[in-house]
Amino acid sequence: MKREDLIQQIKVKKSSLCVGLDTDIEKIPQHLRSEPDPVFTFNKAIIDSTADYAVAYKPNLAFYECDGAKGWDTLQKTLEYIPKEIFTIADAKRGDIGNTSEKYAHTFFRHYAFDAVTVAPYMGADSVRPFLGFKNKWVILLALTSNPGSEDFQQLTLADTGERLYENVLKTSRPWGDEGNMMYVVGATQAAHLQKIREIVPGHFLLIPGVGAQGGNLQEVCKYGMNADGGLLINASRSILYAGSGTDFTSKAREEAMKMQSEMADYLEQYAFGPLGV
Amino acid sequence: MKREDLIQQIKVKKSSLCVGLDTDIEKIPQHLRSEPDPVFTFNKAIIDSTADYAVAYKPNLAFYECDGAKGWDTLQKTLEYIPKEIFTIADAKRGDIGNTSEKYAHTFFRHYAFDAVTVAPYMGADSVRPFLGFKNKWVILLALTSNPGSEDFQQLTLADTGERLYENVLKTSRPWGDEGNMMYVVGATQAAHLQKIREIVPGHFLLIPGVGAQGGNLQEVCKYGMNADGGLLINASRSILYAGSGTDFTSKAREEAMKMQSEMADYLEQYAFGPLGV
Repeated sequence: MKREDLIQQIKVKKSSLCVGLDTDIEKIPQHLRSEPDPVFTFNKAIIDSTADYAVAYKPNLAFYECDGAKGWDTLQKTLEYIPKEIFTIADAKRGDIGNTSEKYAHTFFRHYAFDAVTVAPYMGADSVRPFLGFKNKWVILLALTSNPGSEDFQQLTLADTGERLYENVLKTSRPWGDEGNMMYVVGATQAAHLQKIREIVPGHFLLIPGVGAQGGNLQEVCKYGMNADGGLLINASRSILYAGSGTDFTSKAREEAMKMQSEMADYLEQYAFGPLGV
Repeated sequence: MKREDLIQQIKVKKSSLCVGLDTDIEKIPQHLRSEPDPVFTFNKAIIDSTADYAVAYKPNLAFYECDGAKGWDTLQKTLEYIPKEIFTIADAKRGDIGNTSEKYAHTFFRHYAFDAVTVAPYMGADSVRPFLGFKNKWVILLALTSNPGSEDFQQLTLADTGERLYENVLKTSRPWGDEGNMMYVVGATQAAHLQKIREIVPGHFLLIPGVGAQGGNLQEVCKYGMNADGGLLINASRSILYAGSGTDFTSKAREEAMKMQSEMADYLEQYAFGPLGV
């Protein structure tokens, strides 16, 4: 997907919402578990009930791989079911030497037709670049993640510049791509760092996990993270998927998605686009 | 697999050889490509012809995922075909927030029955620990990789201690597990750093990719990397898999594996165990 099409969709839906499809067979409503493919049935219902409010869907690969080949079929069916105008992210956290990253890129962009894939930066330029050679496809590089472990290495201070490792990751990786094929992951729990991050990458989109179950603050994220193009995809997974636990799970999920979108609409007017009309 | 069983196998076979199953459908001999599952047919033949010399096999997940669900079936069949006494590594470079790493661990250790999985450290402790909760299963954490991009971040100098990032990764992660459930990836092209690495993790096994196609020097790796338990799994992929390109590919692969094992046998006596007998 092209950057301008993503921005257009954010404006039309007045939403930055990305719904994370971390679908856990043990957490979906009991009445679905006897279906032939319960995870797909659940995903279909979640997509139907949230597509009006979401600009992106993000299947988390771990939740499909854990079922082996069958899980990958479920992933494919889910991806094909997502409406074509909605941005799709393979949350895969891949990254390996060049010829291997090339294969991973082929997997997610060609065998499947995801718009974007999340990539881990530890192995450097030649592990990321192979993902950047596909037209209108995106790398979403881990910068500063939402989990406690983000303090272990990402926040270490470097000798030469006094900057943190994640700042160096942003600066070093910036020239590998551009604002039309790279985004960065910044956890919602890291809102305090967003101003500094926006100084380094003012124009790039940021994928923000950690609002919802992980406790990040939506307004702070929007205030310090949004730019004139919106500039954010804000992910919620568990808080939407498991908003209801019975036959009401679709209406509860829709309600939760609508609630987030409606908050986001205000922030998009306030911090990004100005008045968007009705 | 238990550490002592791995060491025993290294002693019996006089080998530290890990064969990387990075099987590329476009590189396997022409006469196999019309088989129903050419990659599995190829892997089977490679395993048959190298199992006498190899103490580990390491399928590279990228080369299976790129064929979607079908590729994961091939992976499963390959894993099941590997003789039970040989150590198996899922080269997957995974790592994500806790509940997601938990799923990945389940995938590789339970759904499949790999002995070990490679993990990327960027997301810190809670992204690695879930892999360490399985009895006789191993995390192989990326420390200093073999590719040019290893200079981008892994070799950065830290302010507080003046050490490199990869040294900090070794020191910080050491207490997360022990010598019976953690190994580290150190590229063979990084032999100059092996002495320093052995000061930090004298007892841990190291997985060494980069001998062969990537140009690492086997003797240097053994001299500076081996310890009293052998302490190394040295991977070769392309140099064995594609040693021959026609119907002779099995004999060529066997020859290449035997050549490496025979060199390793000398180094194991010289740098690890002393005389091993005939």
